[in-house]
Amino acid sequence: MGTINYSYSPGNVECPHKVVIPPPRPFFKSFKNTLKETFFPDDPLRQFKNQPRGRKFILGLQYVFPILEWGPRYSFEFLKADLIAGITIASLAIPQGISYAQLANLPPILGLYSSFVPPLVYAMMGSSRDLAVGTVAVGSLLTGAMLSKDVNPNENLELYVHLAFTATFFAGLFEASLGLLRLGFIVDFLSHATIVGFMAGAATVVCLQQLKGILGLEHFTHATDVVDVLRSIFSQTHKWRWESGLLGCCFLFFLLLTRYLSKRTPKFFWISAMAPLTSVVLGSLLVYLTHAEKHGVQVIGSLKKGLNPPSMTDLAFGSAYLMTAIKTGIITGVIALAEGIAVGRSFAMFKNYQIDGNKEMIAFGMMNIVGSCTSCYLTTGPFSRSAVNFNAGCKTAVSNIVMAIAVMITLMFLTPLFHYTPLVVLSSIIMAAMLGLIDYEAAMHLWTVDKFDFLVCMSAYIGVVFGSIQIGLIVAVALSLLRIILFVARPRTIVLGNLPNSKIYRNVEQYPIATTVPGILILEIDAPIYFANAGYLRERISRWIDEEEDKLRTAEKETTLQYVILDMGAVGAIDTSGISMLEETKKIVDRKELKLVLANPGSEVMKKLNKSKFMENLGQEWIFLTVGEAVSACNFMLHCAKPENHCRKDADADDTLNNNV
Amino acid sequence: MGTINYSYSPGNVECPHKVVIPPPRPFFKSFKNTLKETFFPDDPLRQFKNQPRGRKFILGLQYVFPILEWGPRYSFEFLKADLIAGITIASLAIPQGISYAQLANLPPILGLYSSFVPPLVYAMMGSSRDLAVGTVAVGSLLTGAMLSKDVNPNENLELYVHLAFTATFFAGLFEASLGLLRLGFIVDFLSHATIVGFMAGAATVVCLQQLKGILGLEHFTHATDVVDVLRSIFSQTHKWRWESGLLGCCFLFFLLLTRYLSKRTPKFFWISAMAPLTSVVLGSLLVYLTHAEKHGVQVIGSLKKGLNPPSMTDLAFGSAYLMTAIKTGIITGVIALAEGIAVGRSFAMFKNYQIDGNKEMIAFGMMNIVGSCTSCYLTTGPFSRSAVNFNAGCKTAVSNIVMAIAVMITLMFLTPLFHYTPLVVLSSIIMAAMLGLIDYEAAMHLWTVDKFDFLVCMSAYIGVVFGSIQIGLIVAVALSLLRIILFVARPRTIVLGNLPNSKIYRNVEQYPIATTVPGILILEIDAPIYFANAGYLRERISRWIDEEEDKLRTAEKETTLQYVILDMGAVGAIDTSGISMLEETKKIVDRKELKLVLANPGSEVMKKLNKSKFMENLGQEWIFLTVGEAVSACNFMLHCAKPENHCRKDADADDTLNNNV
Repeated sequence: MGTINYSYSPGNVECPHKVVIPPPRPFFKSFKNTLKETFFPDDPLRQFKNQPRGRKFILGLQYVFPILEWGPRYSFEFLKADLIAGITIASLAIPQGISYAQLANLPPILGLYSSFVPPLVYAMMGSSRDLAVGTVAVGSLLTGAMLSKDVNPNENLELYVHLAFTATFFAGLFEASLGLLRLGFIVDFLSHATIVGFMAGAATVVCLQQLKGILGLEHFTHATDVVDVLRSIFSQTHKWRWESGLLGCCFLFFLLLTRYLSKRTPKFFWISAMAPLTSVVLGSLLVYLTHAEKHGVQVIGSLKKGLNPPSMTDLAFGSAYLMTAIKTGIITGVIALAEGIAVGRSFAMFKNYQIDGNKEMIAFGMMNIVGSCTSCYLTTGPFSRSAVNFNAGCKTAVSNIVMAIAVMITLMFLTPLFHYTPLVVLSSIIMAAMLGLIDYEAAMHLWTVDKFDFLVCMSAYIGVVFGSIQIGLIVAVALSLLRIILFVARPRTIVLGNLPNSKIYRNVEQYPIATTVPGILILEIDAPIYFANAGYLRERISRWIDEEEDKLRTAEKETTLQYVILDMGAVGAIDTSGISMLEETKKIVDRKELKLVLANPGSEVMKKLNKSKFMENLGQEWIFLTVGEAVSACNFMLHCAKPENHCRKDADADDTLNNNV
Repeated sequence: MGTINYSYSPGNVECPHKVVIPPPRPFFKSFKNTLKETFFPDDPLRQFKNQPRGRKFILGLQYVFPILEWGPRYSFEFLKADLIAGITIASLAIPQGISYAQLANLPPILGLYSSFVPPLVYAMMGSSRDLAVGTVAVGSLLTGAMLSKDVNPNENLELYVHLAFTATFFAGLFEASLGLLRLGFIVDFLSHATIVGFMAGAATVVCLQQLKGILGLEHFTHATDVVDVLRSIFSQTHKWRWESGLLGCCFLFFLLLTRYLSKRTPKFFWISAMAPLTSVVLGSLLVYLTHAEKHGVQVIGSLKKGLNPPSMTDLAFGSAYLMTAIKTGIITGVIALAEGIAVGRSFAMFKNYQIDGNKEMIAFGMMNIVGSCTSCYLTTGPFSRSAVNFNAGCKTAVSNIVMAIAVMITLMFLTPLFHYTPLVVLSSIIMAAMLGLIDYEAAMHLWTVDKFDFLVCMSAYIGVVFGSIQIGLIVAVALSLLRIILFVARPRTIVLGNLPNSKIYRNVEQYPIATTVPGILILEIDAPIYFANAGYLRERISRWIDEEEDKLRTAEKETTLQYVILDMGAVGAIDTSGISMLEETKKIVDRKELKLVLANPGSEVMKKLNKSKFMENLGQEWIFLTVGEAVSACNFMLHCAKPENHCRKDADADDTLNNNV
């Protein structure tokens, strides 16, 4: 078969529209637009447009303190609802606060302090109506694990507590900076799969550690991995206290039962919400009456009465462990953010209002900065507490204020009541909460839908359970990044075929009825072309061509490959390496005496093709609006090129015509 | 305007084809396929298929040692060409080798050693026919800068040299591992823009450092940044030696002139290729005759006669500086790989043959591992030498063997001739070579085509010139990674409009003639939907809807928004976070009493939509093959929904029909 004389023009085919080079845009305008899309995709300043200056000031204040916006519209109806919700979450917050502080190896009273000041800050600055602020299990455990490595809380509690405040300060600073710099999208890089695996792993580890409290053990490993923890438990079977174990199992059963009941009948949500406080009261009464504290059941002991002491001067900026505090702060801050933002967003989704992620970050950040100065440690919006808040029918963040007041009253008057609270009850409360975090249904869903997501999830889980919280986190983040890199580096290329009785071309694997066109290879590139995948795409396209030629050769068909059409419809963007890739592909195709044709390049791609002069190199007449038109033109040229078809003259005439386009 | 009763079905519209869920594939088959596409995109084992075992063995040997493949076909014609090319590059390699070794603070003789063994290894294992192997300026400078930080070569030369060998060993090990593990694509992550900026920066720094040699200074800063270097030069103006300066300027002028001549008339390539050796001979003669070495012109001094001594036992695995050596090895190895692979690929592109990147990496790695055991330091395929090789008409890697033999003869007999070679000539040679690396045309091209690429390029340049080589490299890699993250995190969404007289829908910004359809918002998502962009896309789509509603409201048109069509044609892949994003978008759209419609989802997307049950949630009848069909169906529904149009019955009938699809 002879080669085709490509001076014939493909323009004879009827194409009502040409691919257009988008009108040029001044550099600064397009730059401004890119910046805006990158950092302000949600256009938070839209409401400020065309407003007088005074109004802008008020809007600005309302932007920073949303309470100024909804406060004036606050009604008595709302107050009633928020009062009930606030008291409900307070009854959960008090035992949880005490328990989680113990997870972080901090004095229990800090857990109560942390449920007083941060909710007040959030109520003023936060934009979620359903979030209930407080400490979280994973954040507490992580703080404990990271700080305990450098400072032993049993030996130097004061330094340890100061470092915890400092870490909280840096967590807040980091969160607020992310929000101010509009870098909130960094949190998105912790994928859902990662979080499911990480949370389940952390919950497993926390549960196992609670066996210490349930079995009444006094000495326990500081490691968090399952092997060390199990060894620690089974190496001291002789020290197990049956009184403690029995009590723990009873309360755990009670808590799980109430949760099951509430889950089955959502209007009984208050049963499970009240259960922890009920357990604490029952447990304390039991110990008080039976004097069980003298028979191996450990109790909290005396808690200091009074509100949060200021801790501004305790921030250990000059300490030798400052780097530890900063590292702990940043890592726990990100984890806390990821949970808080996700929780806020889910409930906003239910009630159909918008949450500005970056604004939330600033609120979380301020809450932790203020918290670190008032003897609080890391707080965020825990899922369990927020769900109870939501179910209790909260209307606004006033429920947080109600909770804070309830905690304040507790701090001022009721702390002596907790003297006899057995630790085993706190362990049961933590365990029951943690069992709810192991979301095996989500993991199963990942397995059905996306195997790689499941792998990421399991790796995070295994990393946490068999390594440590930090290892799990590093594994999870590394896998997520690897996933992005693989996504970018290995885009899909697809062979298209013609759907019968149409001019539509689609993936031949997806549509088995689609037929390929003899002599023409149509490839769709399914991703933007960047430096990271340009090399791969060049190799892959050249392999597609080789394979197609091999196939035709072994089939001993008369037609040989003549045209390679690249469908650029899915190529959203291209950079200079991408353009070089196209140039190299053109060279490869030319050298095989084939012709490269482009179909449907988008505006970004056309702009760059034009600027880089690749368009002149290719010939603008070889760029078509649709794959269908490109195929028609190629078919026309294929038949014109055979000398027996006398269409030479028309083609020539058209060539002149086309050069003027 | 009333809401539409969505129990009416859109199926009345004539759609010859439905969007198909691709036939299910067994998990392991698709897993194997993914692995293959990820690690073997070029299918290197294709030629082994369907071959008898003996043939497979031979093919395998030929795969590892390409010389076995082309060797038997080697002809006398080839030998003549390779002989000329080999001698030409040897005349360049000898002075360059000596000069670059000085850049790395290594004894000059190591430069010659490095031009002897590695080319022989590459000739057997490499698959490029044009690459000329040798040391490179940037690699040498980087080795020098990184090792000098920890060990002063003037104080402890032996340890320094041993560390250089060790670093070379690790560079080779790293390169070979990348190739063996088929991770060659990691090199692609150094984008072209990064390399242009980094190389130009390194060249600027190297040029400035050569002022030491040209001005005959004895004490000089070890820093590489422009400020320190200039301060060092101008703080000792009284020590400038005019004899040395004059000589340097003359030779520099001579070298640049010859390069200019060769560039203008490519067949005089040998003029510039021979110029360095000519300069060395002329300079040495001049010094010998005038005894200039006694008047401030520094000379190389005596070089040891003889071939490479083995250095296997010098590898400092037990040294305290092992980590420095490993770090240096990995960084210089990657940089060397990036240059070598790019150079090999460009010349292969010219001559139309394929290069297997991973195989090349193994060849580079072996060459450096063997080199580190025979007193060589880091080698790769430098651009300047390979270009000369190419222009001299080399046919195969035999030119490398010829060069190695020429260097061998030099090492055995001619080293005393270099005794009087003035350092200033070497400085001129380096300077002339470096000036060629500052590719300002490439930078200008980046500015025209892609502003962000230009920014990356300039940042790398400024980082190297005002910071250090390492800072420049870190900045460049960080920016490249940031670019990928931004690419992934901020995909484009585009509003589509109808091109007049067609059923084609395209970007309204690119095609100003395209008109939007009243009541229907058509959005194209221009990238795969992953966890990293799902959040952004949800926000952005919801903003598009808000903006469209605002626009219609301010225009006081009668039509309100009723349908949101997402064109999924460009969405090549989706993960579980992407599916959640679609579910959330559906909720947002539903809550605004609009209807979500999908057009043209690809096979990956359909598979996942089906598995995740989102398809049932949306209704398969709301997924269309093309945007055109989707719009027709929506238009049909829009008019049916108005009570005055009596098409209720048909629609109901069709609904039943459609449920069976």
